[in-house]
Amino acid sequence: MWDVAEELKAMLVFAEHRYYGESLPFGNNSFKDSRYLNYLTSEQALADFAVLIKYLKRTIPGAKNQPVIALGGSYGGMLAAWFRMKYPHMVVGALAASAPIWHFGNLVPCGVFMKIVTEDFRKSGPNCSETIHDSWGAITRLARTGSGLHWLSEALHLCTPLRNSQDVQHLKGWISETWINLAMVDYPYESNFLQPLPAWPIKVVCKYLNNPSLSDAQLLQNIFQALNIYYNYSGQARCLNISETTTSNLGTQGWSYQACTEMVMPFCTNGIDDMFEPRSWNFREYSDDCFKQWGVRPRPAWITTVYGGRNISSHSNIVFSNGELDPWSGGGVTKDITDTLVAITIPEGAHHLDLRARNAFDPTTVLLARSLEVRHMKQWIRDFYASQRKKH
Amino acid sequence: MWDVAEELKAMLVFAEHRYYGESLPFGNNSFKDSRYLNYLTSEQALADFAVLIKYLKRTIPGAKNQPVIALGGSYGGMLAAWFRMKYPHMVVGALAASAPIWHFGNLVPCGVFMKIVTEDFRKSGPNCSETIHDSWGAITRLARTGSGLHWLSEALHLCTPLRNSQDVQHLKGWISETWINLAMVDYPYESNFLQPLPAWPIKVVCKYLNNPSLSDAQLLQNIFQALNIYYNYSGQARCLNISETTTSNLGTQGWSYQACTEMVMPFCTNGIDDMFEPRSWNFREYSDDCFKQWGVRPRPAWITTVYGGRNISSHSNIVFSNGELDPWSGGGVTKDITDTLVAITIPEGAHHLDLRARNAFDPTTVLLARSLEVRHMKQWIRDFYASQRKKH
Repeated sequence: MWDVAEELKAMLVFAEHRYYGESLPFGNNSFKDSRYLNYLTSEQALADFAVLIKYLKRTIPGAKNQPVIALGGSYGGMLAAWFRMKYPHMVVGALAASAPIWHFGNLVPCGVFMKIVTEDFRKSGPNCSETIHDSWGAITRLARTGSGLHWLSEALHLCTPLRNSQDVQHLKGWISETWINLAMVDYPYESNFLQPLPAWPIKVVCKYLNNPSLSDAQLLQNIFQALNIYYNYSGQARCLNISETTTSNLGTQGWSYQACTEMVMPFCTNGIDDMFEPRSWNFREYSDDCFKQWGVRPRPAWITTVYGGRNISSHSNIVFSNGELDPWSGGGVTKDITDTLVAITIPEGAHHLDLRARNAFDPTTVLLARSLEVRHMKQWIRDFYASQRKKH
Repeated sequence: MWDVAEELKAMLVFAEHRYYGESLPFGNNSFKDSRYLNYLTSEQALADFAVLIKYLKRTIPGAKNQPVIALGGSYGGMLAAWFRMKYPHMVVGALAASAPIWHFGNLVPCGVFMKIVTEDFRKSGPNCSETIHDSWGAITRLARTGSGLHWLSEALHLCTPLRNSQDVQHLKGWISETWINLAMVDYPYESNFLQPLPAWPIKVVCKYLNNPSLSDAQLLQNIFQALNIYYNYSGQARCLNISETTTSNLGTQGWSYQACTEMVMPFCTNGIDDMFEPRSWNFREYSDDCFKQWGVRPRPAWITTVYGGRNISSHSNIVFSNGELDPWSGGGVTKDITDTLVAITIPEGAHHLDLRARNAFDPTTVLLARSLEVRHMKQWIRDFYASQRKKH
């Protein structure tokens, strides 16, 4: 965005989403009671952006008649797309990078996400996804005895030793989360989005996961080496903490509440199309967990009702970009819908690689994507000025 | 709608707006506290319609893949237009009859409404608008003494005698409201929308208001005759009640709250372009009254922020119809915006005449308007099926 802003002589505005960062409508109480959380919705966030744009146009000299473009990645990409859909009078277009706007209801199969994660590992080294696939059974077998639990805790350098089967379930969830995060940030150069990582981190991880015929203990020792790449690339960690998967705070509280109200994304695995233990999508369990944590129950049909699901062809001027390595691309728009609702896919791209700063190691496909994106933006701006001229 | 539904083999659904009629989310408490009124907004109403349509499609055999059209008049017309703007995936188009979507902010002059009311009286009989213009001074002069107040109360057959200048102000407001209502329902045949009335009621009223040179007392006696047409066409009323202007309950409580939150429509008069006493638009006073009545303050910029104001050209498939006699047409869309955002004007039409049932006295201009409206609806339906075929 910094690179492109210069080219387009644009002002950049980063709007903080309500309930994230410092934008807490009820201060420190904002997350204390579901009454205070009622105002945390995507629609309210979009309304904030609308009011903000009006305010900026009114108060910043020269801004009044300038065209505005919405940009965002991930949830921010969904918001960008939805903003153009709901407030087309406010923005001439939107770039929705890695925005899984269709990962709701039954718009895409619930297994698509984990299938792409698996594919990333399969392609990144021989036997890599198979090794991970086998690791779950190995953990289960080792965890059957007290000494096995002890050995596992030591071998994985866990900060807190495993005590029971619940801890083991938690461990498996944490390891799965790690592979998922690696798939999201499988960037072609050293980076620090969720964790400091080497270039093409899955390739690095997979170097430890290439031997298909090992004992359970040997396999788990290799799994540790792989995890250690993700959690200890900087060499600072003395042990691995299974209650954390990311260093930076992406507002997990806010998202957890949103996932328990509007943003219900069904996930599942079957262990055949993916390398994970089979787990079906269980909405009732999901809803019960939400009720326990937040005192609310999710409304799984709402997002498709309000934002149109797959039926969005009457809108215009949205570029949906997706990296094919990115598991979120499974819920994204990866084919053109109309001439002005356009999909750009980046074969070597992970999660919103296109939004990252220029880098010498950028694959040509992301350079091409960025230049296409800018071309669309310039077209929206030209169309805006053309329609302004017609009015006067 | 009944006539057209038959032609289009359509199902008609009348959705009751929340907080109106029996749709009271908090039962009898719904209007007791502003806490319970938080959910009374146009956005929530649109969301209700979206959820309702999904429900009907899911539960009514054969409805699932049918195209839906939104229709409405007045506020209902605004909702129809806004629904197509915000939920274009739900309805193939909208007929917004007499929908003053631009009577907000400074999109139209605040005097336009009363100017049209005046024009209706001016055209309906010689000296008619002048007589009304002069009546306010006559009332003021007569009201200066106790005996004058008494005389006025008798001459106008008021149910409750006037006691002070506040009552006189109230009387003037009530009379103004009567002329406004007459302008809205100036239909070409006997009707009973706000009150039972003769055909072209303003013409009938103006027969009593055609003499420019009368004493104050004579003038007011004629004003009584005119008012009596509106309030006593059926001959049942024994006196005139200045706390009522309509017989049917159009949900004045709900609208009063909405007018005090989102639906802020500026009105003003200057006594030159209109036949009323001059009164400027005073937002502060308006806001204070709202605070007194509902404990809330209005957000006058919100409707244009959320629904786009005049900047709506990126939407499609909306017909805005307006009768030129209708004072609300001043805030309506009366010129085509694009090929698919179309204005239809009905020179002899009052408030959403086109939505009323066929009548032998319908002017040809409303027949033409209705046939154009149906033509657009058929086009939307054809386009819908064409795009369905393309998908499969």
